[in-house]
Amino acid sequence: MDTDNVDIIKVSATSRTSAVAGAIAGIFRERQFVNVQAIGASAVNQAVKALALACDYLAEDGYEVVSIPEFVDVEIDGNIRTAIRLNVVPR
Amino acid sequence: MDTDNVDIIKVSATSRTSAVAGAIAGIFRERQFVNVQAIGASAVNQAVKALALACDYLAEDGYEVVSIPEFVDVEIDGNIRTAIRLNVVPR
Repeated sequence: MDTDNVDIIKVSATSRTSAVAGAIAGIFRERQFVNVQAIGASAVNQAVKALALACDYLAEDGYEVVSIPEFVDVEIDGNIRTAIRLNVVPR
Repeated sequence: MDTDNVDIIKVSATSRTSAVAGAIAGIFRERQFVNVQAIGASAVNQAVKALALACDYLAEDGYEVVSIPEFVDVEIDGNIRTAIRLNVVPR
């Protein structure tokens, strides 16, 4: 997980679900949106699990959040990879 | 993919993305909602990719769809497994 650029939370296969969920919820509370990006099946799975958990956290705060998944091409070490980006927004 | 019970599309690791996307779009057009369920990282990845594709299809028809992910416990062969369910609804 990389939250230095807080416009996008980058989730990896080894990101901890609870840590990513906390980051999603924290940034969403501040901005009312957050983007979560993952490349590869394991990372996408971690991202979705974290999002499910974050939706629970945010529901407790009265936020109803939804996600819009999309494909995005990202450059990594000079190679183009297809990532899944989950745009997390208020319903 | 199992569409016999069309209330829930069950996605497996070997489901074809385009086939699942077509099923999501087809059922959504008919009912304005659909649930997509997956167990395991590969299946969740297939489900999210299919959903991203289905969102594109449905956007062409003028539908703005979003998903709400949640954990659900399901019984498979007498064992309880935790699945990810993506509730696909209009924004």
